Amino acid sequence: MPVLSLPTYDITIGSLALAHRQWLLERRYAGIVVLTDENTHRHCWPLLAPWLEGMPVQQIVVPAGEAHKHLDTCRRIWDELLAAGAGRRWCMLNLGGGVIGDMGGFCASTYKRGMDFVQLPTTLLSQVDASVGGKLGIDYGGVKNSIGVFREPNAVWIDPAFLDSLSHRELRSGFAEILKHALIADAGQWATLKALPDLSAVRWGELIPGSVAIKKEVVLADFYETGPRKALNFGHTIGHAVESYRLDGAQPLLHGEAIAAGMVAEAWLSHRLAGLPEAELEEIATTLTGYFGHEPVPEEALPELLALMRQDKKNEADEINITFLGRIGEAIVNGRATEAEIAEAIRFYNQLG
Amino acid sequence: MPVLSLPTYDITIGSLALAHRQWLLERRYAGIVVLTDENTHRHCWPLLAPWLEGMPVQQIVVPAGEAHKHLDTCRRIWDELLAAGAGRRWCMLNLGGGVIGDMGGFCASTYKRGMDFVQLPTTLLSQVDASVGGKLGIDYGGVKNSIGVFREPNAVWIDPAFLDSLSHRELRSGFAEILKHALIADAGQWATLKALPDLSAVRWGELIPGSVAIKKEVVLADFYETGPRKALNFGHTIGHAVESYRLDGAQPLLHGEAIAAGMVAEAWLSHRLAGLPEAELEEIATTLTGYFGHEPVPEEALPELLALMRQDKKNEADEINITFLGRIGEAIVNGRATEAEIAEAIRFYNQLG
Repeated sequence: MPVLSLPTYDITIGSLALAHRQWLLERRYAGIVVLTDENTHRHCWPLLAPWLEGMPVQQIVVPAGEAHKHLDTCRRIWDELLAAGAGRRWCMLNLGGGVIGDMGGFCASTYKRGMDFVQLPTTLLSQVDASVGGKLGIDYGGVKNSIGVFREPNAVWIDPAFLDSLSHRELRSGFAEILKHALIADAGQWATLKALPDLSAVRWGELIPGSVAIKKEVVLADFYETGPRKALNFGHTIGHAVESYRLDGAQPLLHGEAIAAGMVAEAWLSHRLAGLPEAELEEIATTLTGYFGHEPVPEEALPELLALMRQDKKNEADEINITFLGRIGEAIVNGRATEAEIAEAIRFYNQLG
Repeated sequence: MPVLSLPTYDITIGSLALAHRQWLLERRYAGIVVLTDENTHRHCWPLLAPWLEGMPVQQIVVPAGEAHKHLDTCRRIWDELLAAGAGRRWCMLNLGGGVIGDMGGFCASTYKRGMDFVQLPTTLLSQVDASVGGKLGIDYGGVKNSIGVFREPNAVWIDPAFLDSLSHRELRSGFAEILKHALIADAGQWATLKALPDLSAVRWGELIPGSVAIKKEVVLADFYETGPRKALNFGHTIGHAVESYRLDGAQPLLHGEAIAAGMVAEAWLSHRLAGLPEAELEEIATTLTGYFGHEPVPEEALPELLALMRQDKKNEADEINITFLGRIGEAIVNGRATEAEIAEAIRFYNQLG
């Protein structure tokens, strides 16, 4: 089983096994809390439960979905921890997608000033992205992830078996982050990914280790996101705004779907402002629209999208902070684009369809 | 002006001056938020304001008192930060006592996953104790400091001029922590302190540096409180319970007053269980009751006090975790006492009066 060692914890990629049980037993936790949402409680908990047999386990089950990634759900989690008598020598296992990992990690990091926690990501998106990097938090005041902390988990256990209950669309959403990792750091992996014949035939367990390794390298170089880590933001400045905008509409996009559109638009900006060759821009646009189809942004939505981008944590002044590609496999952080340039980039994406 | 350098920040002890203004200017913060309560806004803000002239300052004023150290006040602080458009490149100045420092530091540490903050403690208690050590948090679910994080500030500025508006009783409360620092780590300082002729004549600015230096040494040895840092807990297991118990009554005790009682009771346990010489126990009891008077605990309150102690974060099983003194100036952490022994210690204190 591939193991990626970070300075303070290990990421294992493979089936849950005796080694994971041993890890918990060796630490002699006074108690173990398993946090799930209603979906992962049904589909994923049965895969974890056998390995916890005989341990002092408490379960906390919260409603599923980003709409519940807020302070009221934290209160419920903290209340149940207090009611269970959980102390600092307990460990929380966060079994779920990005919402459970971000919110559960935040609750564990703040309960009695911090208890141990293990991330068990159950979606492809959280397996390749959210499980590494220590970004924890909740949505607050209408702003995504506006309250949170940076804190590393005590372990990350990625079991591809959790993916079996996911739809094609959810898997494809996670695949967008795999593509992004290749685009910012590994041209060879990009060449492999763009040539995949059929996503439904992909063995995800084989793609995950390389993708997580990229994320790990980038995060280790810059844990608190003062510089190089912003490479991971490629596609996300515009993509996040598209995601937020569509959230209120009749047909919301999954995170990866919005980021795919964002990557095309930001590749266009990279071509115009940072020297990405035109042939590579075309290759990126063709590949991404091939996998993800086309979701044009109505012209009248542009002001709202630009307003959303100005809210982003990473901005410093009037211009919007963007991560460019200098070429495929090479990111340039702290790029800047004007609002007019960003509008033009979205129009470029719009006319592809 | 004495400066204590910690690995990631400095503590200055002395009047606010041009150096503090320079510190802020050099960091080119996009904005500065000053958090005060209603009292420190009135009494302390006028001492800070001149040094911030011309800087982009926003003020947040919250109600004073431990009763407001809870999540609703955090929401108000976070809301005002969002409304002000505060970002990661802002800095929060926490101008107040322990409540403002703990809660403001927690809000700053969790806002957009962490913005810079400076602690400007304005009570003697927070100047010698709460301003060093990175313990941040709020009361939640009826449990003191049950939600919080460990995070170091970017600077601590201790100005004894802030003490001018404090009552004798408040100053004496902070003096209890100065006595504790001496008892756990510096017999020479203890000898000086027990011989002070009159607290109202003390020049606090002269006592603070030595006391903060002890706290700093202990914290640096064990930031996350897995071992030696528990030395600082001397007097606090019983003292905290006394404080909580009296909080609901007609005559609440200040923190230091409760801790003074706790130190006498825990000195008795140290004599019985850890070899503290009887003469030193008597010296401690005489000195502390001399400064703080006597606040006996009703016999019928003992069950409630013991229940409160069982709730403490530091406990691991049925026995209660106590920090002992082996002798004056030397702490022994991770001591244990039974509930019967603790009840007896409180009875020892009760019969002193």
